Amino acid sequence: MIENRSDRPLILVSNDDGITAPGIRNLVEEMQQIGDVLVVAPDKPQSAMGHAITINQPLRLTKVNQFPGVESYQCTGTPVDCVKLAIDKLLPRKPDLMVSGINHGANSSINVIYSGTMSAAVEAAIDGMPAIGFSLCDFSWDANFAPARPFIRKIALELLRNGLPYGTLLNVNIPVPADGEIKGVRICRQAIAKWKEDFDERQDPFNRKYYWMTGKFINMDKGEDTDEWALAHGYVSVVPTQFDLTDHSRISALNTWDIHDTPTP
Amino acid sequence: MIENRSDRPLILVSNDDGITAPGIRNLVEEMQQIGDVLVVAPDKPQSAMGHAITINQPLRLTKVNQFPGVESYQCTGTPVDCVKLAIDKLLPRKPDLMVSGINHGANSSINVIYSGTMSAAVEAAIDGMPAIGFSLCDFSWDANFAPARPFIRKIALELLRNGLPYGTLLNVNIPVPADGEIKGVRICRQAIAKWKEDFDERQDPFNRKYYWMTGKFINMDKGEDTDEWALAHGYVSVVPTQFDLTDHSRISALNTWDIHDTPTP
Repeated sequence: MIENRSDRPLILVSNDDGITAPGIRNLVEEMQQIGDVLVVAPDKPQSAMGHAITINQPLRLTKVNQFPGVESYQCTGTPVDCVKLAIDKLLPRKPDLMVSGINHGANSSINVIYSGTMSAAVEAAIDGMPAIGFSLCDFSWDANFAPARPFIRKIALELLRNGLPYGTLLNVNIPVPADGEIKGVRICRQAIAKWKEDFDERQDPFNRKYYWMTGKFINMDKGEDTDEWALAHGYVSVVPTQFDLTDHSRISALNTWDIHDTPTP
Repeated sequence: MIENRSDRPLILVSNDDGITAPGIRNLVEEMQQIGDVLVVAPDKPQSAMGHAITINQPLRLTKVNQFPGVESYQCTGTPVDCVKLAIDKLLPRKPDLMVSGINHGANSSINVIYSGTMSAAVEAAIDGMPAIGFSLCDFSWDANFAPARPFIRKIALELLRNGLPYGTLLNVNIPVPADGEIKGVRICRQAIAKWKEDFDERQDPFNRKYYWMTGKFINMDKGEDTDEWALAHGYVSVVPTQFDLTDHSRISALNTWDIHDTPTP
């Protein structure tokens, strides 16, 4: 069991690309410079799992030697399962920080909804931990994380220093500019965007149809205060993200609808 | 292919308990009274799948005779996959309404995050459809949906009549009061709540540990304007729900953090 020391921050690390992904190794190396690290991550890729949890199958948790000097576990479940197991079975106290990633691929705009990386961070925030999801805008396994790392360390340190009120976490995306130079950091809102589905239809050897999900990203937002704008212009995007999904602005309008009385069956 | 008629509303129906669940049958029966219905639902239970999508496996879509007179398909994927396949492969035009459920079990407060039922409705809303997720506060397979149905029909009709701006959908939960009488409808905010994990630890026949996820629901919110309050007091809860997760109120505070310049590596 990880030591319960109060002189150094306790940091929980997870991801959705799996414990062997280069992204989480880069994140662990940065966090080791800041505090005591516990890693609990999926034993296989769990991208696009959103906030899925495992309720119909048992889960396994296995101690592994993935990162020198860092207590680490792989889990058979989803990113959210990893955080829940860490809370219930492994953490000696509430961590001072939870970080998820570094994801191989962007989780900006609407991608926050599908992202296992962000859902792990959301789960930590629901439990009351200061939490950040980090993503690099490069899907490749051998992406270059080096330019991203100083930003990640700085943002993590600033969250430790400033804190955040319950209900808010950070969604941080890091661009890979063509000229190699990241211009700085922008605090952003989530751009209004969606994926236009285009399923690839095929026939199996038994003449039955099957489909692969593909799609095209559509940014419907022309604002210059969005994460998509920041990333396209070479800035790291930081979006304060919440899990209260209530559209508070719509409550009074709904109160004018004719739905309040019990209808006659 | 479902007929493209403009004289009756076109309604897409999905769920997360699977196409054979009594809850979706009750929903289809109500929607048939309102418009032309297309059902695309998972071929097996997909509860707690959140906004997961299937990207590492192909999907299958099979026409089934599940509901008399209603064009219906079962899909091997998640609730969100069902909506995406319906949009790309089955719908003749944008539906006038998308409804998801009726879920066997509540999706109030923080449960909205884990719910496959709500994620199907969220996916439809991202695509621009007026959408509602319906849930009954009874997990049992043989739950009594009859008292809920007049409320469901009324709320669906009012959404068709009033519409909603892009970015907002409805999360509707229906109580099962001890005295059997639903008192009416309340427009609510999502209560601040969480699950406290309590994994059940067991040993398999080979002496290896495994875990079942269990937990205790904790309502941290004493407000009388929440969905949990409404349900506990016998009211149907209607929460306007959004997929812009930005905590807009936090942007100015984050702009005071010392993270804007490029850190020295």
